[in-house]
Amino acid sequence: MENYRECGKKVKDVSLQELRDRLAEFARVRGWDQYHSPRNLLLALVGEVGELSEIFQWKGEVEKGLPNWSRDDKEHLEEELSDVLLYLVQLAHVCGSLILAAALTKIFKNAKQNTLSLTLLT
Amino acid sequence: MENYRECGKKVKDVSLQELRDRLAEFARVRGWDQYHSPRNLLLALVGEVGELSEIFQWKGEVEKGLPNWSRDDKEHLEEELSDVLLYLVQLAHVCGSLILAAALTKIFKNAKQNTLSLTLLT
Amino acid sequence: MENYRECGKKVKDVSLQELRDRLAEFARVRGWDQYHSPRNLLLALVGEVGELSEIFQWKGEVEKGLPNWSRDDKEHLEEELSDVLLYLVQLAHVCGSLILAAALTKIFKNAKQNTLSLTLLT
Amino acid sequence: MENYRECGKKVKDVSLQELRDRLAEFARVRGWDQYHSPRNLLLALVGEVGELSEIFQWKGEVEKGLPNWSRDDKEHLEEELSDVLLYLVQLAHVCGSLILAAALTKIFKNAKQNTLSLTLLT
Repeated sequence: MENYRECGKKVKDVSLQELRDRLAEFARVRGWDQYHSPRNLLLALVGEVGELSEIFQWKGEVEKGLPNWSRDDKEHLEEELSDVLLYLVQLAHVCGSLILAAALTKIFKNAKQNTLSLTLLT
Repeated sequence: MENYRECGKKVKDVSLQELRDRLAEFARVRGWDQYHSPRNLLLALVGEVGELSEIFQWKGEVEKGLPNWSRDDKEHLEEELSDVLLYLVQLAHVCGSLILAAALTKIFKNAKQNTLSLTLLT
Repeated sequence: MENYRECGKKVKDVSLQELRDRLAEFARVRGWDQYHSPRNLLLALVGEVGELSEIFQWKGEVEKGLPNWSRDDKEHLEEELSDVLLYLVQLAHVCGSLILAAALTKIFKNAKQNTLSLTLLT
Repeated sequence: MENYRECGKKVKDVSLQELRDRLAEFARVRGWDQYHSPRNLLLALVGEVGELSEIFQWKGEVEKGLPNWSRDDKEHLEEELSDVLLYLVQLAHVCGSLILAAALTKIFKNAKQNTLSLTLLT
């Protein structure tokens, strides 16, 4: 695992639950557990959503795919999206929430109401 | 797939990329694509984070695991956490972001700085 | 004061400090003081900003003055802007903050850096 | 007006409408008008609320008056509260909103529903 770029190529995907477990271990090893109360993590999430918004704030309407954005802006965006995800997963974790199950339920409910067939759960 | 609860039991986990693909199909079938510009989805995300905050707003400090919360409050929380996740995944998608890759990169970078070993990428 | 519309006409303006004092009295009379801790009010503020964002979320870019908005949408907007202001003033109050003084300081500092003259403080 | 501290003492209060007018002039002189579309300002507001949240995020429950906060933390808080206010006032302005009137209406309505007497509008 010395070379990150090499590793990066191998990582195709990971599940939310694997992510959650890694983050929990990560926090535990560093002694961050004590700070990870639900409201602390919620405010951290709000903070990251604020940083995400700052990237978009003076840009006016933005097209899909961000065609005119610089590489720096795009990397910055990746980081902030990632931070939001990481705090969201951790918040769900300390609340004992199975966030993914809830997300699937939501999609399923919506699909049912609209008589769409969804193959996600099959 | 008539019975959701049955299906629910079978769903152990799903990856972020599967989730992304389903949501994209979901929006496309309904003609929602036209509304899913990056800033529209970002504001929708902010809206959901607001709803998430409202659940916690008058509760004072909240313990991990939410020991004294009613079943209704917990279900409501699941829904809002889920909504935040769904908009985040869709926002990342229309921005062409590989959010998960970014999240992994972040964890990897942090781990490296702290000389922790992480088995996530191996 | 029986007739609000009549009163409304007379109200040209009010200061932030008057607003703060009224809100404090308002909360005290109702016994809401106990819920108005700094973080409770902060999360309430986040919730209102979320509701404000929901008004704008599917609209794409919006022109100044909101030329094509319905009366209902405009009234809804007024309410949400107002809610954000009211929680902001209350949050500042329980933090012992002279928010207005800070705002003026900020304007003053910015003006100085740009060698603009500001008559606000004179 | 060379000396801010001297000026500061003289500033007891200012109205929201004065603040709005100054900010509008401020933006106009600098050519910022072109960036001040409603959704740009809204996202800037969200960004500032995020910064405000970051101040509180790892603190656990916070007592009124912030008894144990450092002077630096308090000054930082003042700045962020102020930034939220300034963007809120500007957002209301470009939306053609009389935010203060809306705030007063809200207080008045609430008071009426609870048969409280309010002297604010008299």
